[in-house]
Amino acid sequence: MPETDPSLEPFFSPAGVAVVGASHDPTKLGYGLSRNLVQSGYRGAIHFVNIHNGSLMGLPVYPNLAEVPDPVDLAVLLIPAAGIPEALRECARRGIHAAIIAAGGFRETDSDGAALEAECLKLAREHGLRLLGPNCIGLLDTHLPLDTTFLSPPGPTPGDVAFVSHSGAICAAVIDWARGQGFGLSRLVSLGNQADVNETDMLVQVSTDPYTHVLTLYLEGVSDGRRFVEQARRVSLEKPVVALKVGRFESSQRAVASHTGALAGSEDAFNAAFRRAGVIRAETTEELFDWARALAWCPLPGGRSVAVLTNAGGPGVTAVDSLETHGLRLAQLSVETQASLKEMLPPAASLTNPVDMLAGASPQQYAACLRILLGAPEVDSAMVILPPPPMHTAGGIAKAIIPVIFTSQKPVVVALMGERLIQEAVEHFRAAHVPEYRFPERAATALAILAQRAEYLTAERTGQADAIQWLEGMKREAVGVFLEGREPGWLSQEQVFQVLAAYGIPTLQIRLAASAAQAANLAGEMGYPVVLKIAAPQVAHKSDYGGVLLDLRDRRAVVNGYKTVVDNSRKAWPGAENEGVYVQRMVAEGQEVIIGAIQDADFGPVVMFGSGGVEVEGLKDVQFSLAPPSREETEAMLENTWAGKKLHGYRNLPPADRPAVKDALLRLAQLAVDFPQLAEIEINPLRVLEEGMGAVAIDARARLGR
Amino acid sequence: MPETDPSLEPFFSPAGVAVVGASHDPTKLGYGLSRNLVQSGYRGAIHFVNIHNGSLMGLPVYPNLAEVPDPVDLAVLLIPAAGIPEALRECARRGIHAAIIAAGGFRETDSDGAALEAECLKLAREHGLRLLGPNCIGLLDTHLPLDTTFLSPPGPTPGDVAFVSHSGAICAAVIDWARGQGFGLSRLVSLGNQADVNETDMLVQVSTDPYTHVLTLYLEGVSDGRRFVEQARRVSLEKPVVALKVGRFESSQRAVASHTGALAGSEDAFNAAFRRAGVIRAETTEELFDWARALAWCPLPGGRSVAVLTNAGGPGVTAVDSLETHGLRLAQLSVETQASLKEMLPPAASLTNPVDMLAGASPQQYAACLRILLGAPEVDSAMVILPPPPMHTAGGIAKAIIPVIFTSQKPVVVALMGERLIQEAVEHFRAAHVPEYRFPERAATALAILAQRAEYLTAERTGQADAIQWLEGMKREAVGVFLEGREPGWLSQEQVFQVLAAYGIPTLQIRLAASAAQAANLAGEMGYPVVLKIAAPQVAHKSDYGGVLLDLRDRRAVVNGYKTVVDNSRKAWPGAENEGVYVQRMVAEGQEVIIGAIQDADFGPVVMFGSGGVEVEGLKDVQFSLAPPSREETEAMLENTWAGKKLHGYRNLPPADRPAVKDALLRLAQLAVDFPQLAEIEINPLRVLEEGMGAVAIDARARLGR
Repeated sequence: MPETDPSLEPFFSPAGVAVVGASHDPTKLGYGLSRNLVQSGYRGAIHFVNIHNGSLMGLPVYPNLAEVPDPVDLAVLLIPAAGIPEALRECARRGIHAAIIAAGGFRETDSDGAALEAECLKLAREHGLRLLGPNCIGLLDTHLPLDTTFLSPPGPTPGDVAFVSHSGAICAAVIDWARGQGFGLSRLVSLGNQADVNETDMLVQVSTDPYTHVLTLYLEGVSDGRRFVEQARRVSLEKPVVALKVGRFESSQRAVASHTGALAGSEDAFNAAFRRAGVIRAETTEELFDWARALAWCPLPGGRSVAVLTNAGGPGVTAVDSLETHGLRLAQLSVETQASLKEMLPPAASLTNPVDMLAGASPQQYAACLRILLGAPEVDSAMVILPPPPMHTAGGIAKAIIPVIFTSQKPVVVALMGERLIQEAVEHFRAAHVPEYRFPERAATALAILAQRAEYLTAERTGQADAIQWLEGMKREAVGVFLEGREPGWLSQEQVFQVLAAYGIPTLQIRLAASAAQAANLAGEMGYPVVLKIAAPQVAHKSDYGGVLLDLRDRRAVVNGYKTVVDNSRKAWPGAENEGVYVQRMVAEGQEVIIGAIQDADFGPVVMFGSGGVEVEGLKDVQFSLAPPSREETEAMLENTWAGKKLHGYRNLPPADRPAVKDALLRLAQLAVDFPQLAEIEINPLRVLEEGMGAVAIDARARLGR
Repeated sequence: MPETDPSLEPFFSPAGVAVVGASHDPTKLGYGLSRNLVQSGYRGAIHFVNIHNGSLMGLPVYPNLAEVPDPVDLAVLLIPAAGIPEALRECARRGIHAAIIAAGGFRETDSDGAALEAECLKLAREHGLRLLGPNCIGLLDTHLPLDTTFLSPPGPTPGDVAFVSHSGAICAAVIDWARGQGFGLSRLVSLGNQADVNETDMLVQVSTDPYTHVLTLYLEGVSDGRRFVEQARRVSLEKPVVALKVGRFESSQRAVASHTGALAGSEDAFNAAFRRAGVIRAETTEELFDWARALAWCPLPGGRSVAVLTNAGGPGVTAVDSLETHGLRLAQLSVETQASLKEMLPPAASLTNPVDMLAGASPQQYAACLRILLGAPEVDSAMVILPPPPMHTAGGIAKAIIPVIFTSQKPVVVALMGERLIQEAVEHFRAAHVPEYRFPERAATALAILAQRAEYLTAERTGQADAIQWLEGMKREAVGVFLEGREPGWLSQEQVFQVLAAYGIPTLQIRLAASAAQAANLAGEMGYPVVLKIAAPQVAHKSDYGGVLLDLRDRRAVVNGYKTVVDNSRKAWPGAENEGVYVQRMVAEGQEVIIGAIQDADFGPVVMFGSGGVEVEGLKDVQFSLAPPSREETEAMLENTWAGKKLHGYRNLPPADRPAVKDALLRLAQLAVDFPQLAEIEINPLRVLEEGMGAVAIDARARLGR
């Protein structure tokens, strides 16, 4: 269960609401709010406050909060920004501990506004007040009911979809638009600047509403990424959460020098966080609510096999394309199912999926065939396609199939194509809470989301997603001592290898030589062929400038190579300190992958897996996960990259040691979790040997942040 | 100009129409069609034919076509399939040369139906008749006007969007749906089974309609791919063409053994064909018409810089995300533009793009700011965002900005968010032909399509896209003689190299050795290191089974290697004939790419470029183009793959000889064009050396088809 906060309760179940700044003037927001609150049917006490007292809508107007009688536990402040601090003090004096601040003119405008907002927050903390806003349009609950917005009527139809939004304008649009789309809202919260209460607080609070079946979020970011993930995950185990996250091109200006850092956009971290939290990410506003309706109204499917029932071929083909595009498949109808369908349909009808009943299909045929399909064990869900039928009415067909849909435990969505000729059907379906979409493409995405939700819950309930391997041999203290008090900057490769080794990640022995002769001696001890690398930790892409020599096969090659590497490096980076030359045995076997970790500004440590080597940024064959990744997430990172697929073996590449890769990934992730000062750390390449032979870090870089 | 066909003219400008199968019974399609034809306002002669004669809707009913008086040049046949051949004969006897066959029961049902359809086509050819259908709902023209469909009223609003469709049900849905979306249709054609007239014929015919500003297509395939491309290209130079192509998962079951063949799905060929033809491909039905409206109603932008004008921050952020996702950019507003905006707006407004006028923005402010933005040289197009405004009406804002939009030569789209509160604005914009969309996401895609269309026309008009390089030294005759009469199957590598060399593609010398000693002698002549490859043309992936040895550095290595290669091959393919072992100098410099060509069933030769090596199918870093590719297409293939981008140089890889790659690609393409019997041919790898040093085929395979 998500962690609710009793101090937020007055927002959704106030005993009495005071409107500070209520107005008689219909052009003022203070009038609109007063009207909405009264017209919402709110059953608690309503108190209007305005320096000009008198009465408004038959209710008394008080000159100040002090004179407002009991009960009152929520204040809605519709006064200019400058007056807010004093109003908050008055709230506190009057014993009100929750306030909604509608006014703008705070942090979103300038530094004076930011200072005013900070002052308000300080006051709130001092007096135990919770604040929604500032710069918001308030909240509403259609079932309590309660409406603290100042929006033009009509308000929303009561329903089962909750909406929590960083944008007030989108709230206004969604309230109005939802009506046309035929769905109602349960609760709606405009978060504004979030001086105090934020998206996570409200997500949790709204989730406890019994009328809310699905939560939708419009997010421009998150206030505390890790808390959001933790709480959203708890919520999404109970109720589906769908989010539209915008602002993807407001890239955080991170200074990064590793491949991992360069590749990990903040959107990758958001995607990883949403996956972890079970939050479904919509790409458009329409998807957000297309999916919300299906999630609110449909049972979940047992699998990804869909039956398509149509009275025409063309839309059936469109449906098949869309279903397959979204990872669903056409159910293979059994001989029995086809035999049952045959009894209902003309000879020319298509009995295989998509089932095409032909243009003359009657309401009875639609209903009978849908009943057969939903009864078939090979069918997990169904899409009914309904262009304007030439011989019957769409409304008649809707009436015939709705009882069939009601009596089934499988989800059914309807692609209802047209406008005037389908209007009656639209109304029937909406009244019956059967999700209908104008074309098969959108209907298909809704079915895909239902399947995704079902799979998520199954995975969570069977505990798979939580099973993080227990890793032996991680010497946390040793690394702590080692990193203690170090200056920010790059570690040497030897140091990185020490840290990796302490966490049980195998590294290929590397030795520092201070002279050509010493290098040759070390090579002789290790065995040829060897690799020489300049020891200059701050320099990226050493190999590009002749700082690395591969495949040196004898003493002479090493002696000459030493000089070459040092000379090349002096030329390329005249100022860079070099500490000598590393000698390492050359390993050519196995496959190369990259694993890395960075600290994301929102979500903390994030790990990456993918195709390594020098072209990693060009190929972009990488996947991300919050650290530490679950077993399922680890598997998904491997399966969703070519580097990971190849580990199963490919052509003459034998199967590689996948468990060793996962183990190294988990250890690196744990390292990033344990030491947030490791701003970037990556192993490139990690050489993965054949099954059972392990994986070994060949090269690695790490940078300590502040 | 596209090539119109005079024999198709009666479909869109008949002097008289005979309805065979007209009916008094309102439940019959023959009644619906008669009603639609009369009510459409068709000004030519209408003749009803039915064995029960009398009169219908005040017009005489004739017992047969023979008795129909002049003028009559189009017959609409609404009788069952079995009667169609006789009806076609009657048409011919009556001097009618165009017929629409509505009935189903032909090729789409069974082999008897297919035979009947073939019979109809044969009759049509014999008698010089053109047929639309069978199994279609006919066509309509809202401006002539003419309606030969039997659909339930209301018919479509007259407009400027034409729709040509393989699916009749989609026609019915679109006619009804378009009304709700606020756009009208000019012509609509349901193609049915296309026994005679096909999508290309109708595309061309409809394009000549002066009322049609944009053509939309619903395609389940194309009848003659090359002709479609040629004609659609001519059409799209005059008017925009947008297509929804479905059936992407009905993959053609090609037998392929090359990488190129394995990677080239039929959708890749369709994408290449649409690109060539200038046809804009929509992914969903809604996109098809979202884009059609913008293309029909807006001027084209001069570039990709968009100004966003909003009264709220949230939708502005959503707009920015969507614009950037679709390859557009936010215009950087100049100091002058910002100064002009400043005069119109409150101090807290945002003068940088997106321009946020704040919630109080009035109609006058919307209009003034939009005028400033459209007048700014740094702005190519604009998106106006309009959630329900809290202080004003959306309708008032619409009225204020429409004149500004009318007087600008730059495209403007509107994201009008809501339902009831924006209804008046919706109506104003629709009446004014300003494209409006419910949310910024869809509005952004429309702007992107306008930019794409503008760029396409610019490229075509400057002749870039047509400039295929003239290639010297292609010995067509020599290859013809060589391929003449050969059996289908794989060519040997030497043979493929001969063919490539004849077309001027450099190949790395390869020599066949029949013994270890001969191999060593050849290697000595060529210079070490060398590569040995088993000569077994039918075997793919030779290297996986030890059939290839690299980097042999001396005579002894070659002698031993010969035996190894032969032994490995005998083990791996006991039955396969081997003709000896190829010896080739080892080339390690440069970059590896793959180039290939296959014959697509729909569109003929298609070329591929991308990342080569053994992992080509895993990396899927490839692009396709119809062969021969234009200069622009060639450049795009390179720029849209990592393999191609890398040719500019990457880290320590020096810039490679891109012109040599393009030259090889064009030559290979021309080879595939000249010799359709080359079912698959590919060079993998083509080694691309440094700038000015050329590119050379290291390995190549080719298969002759039938």
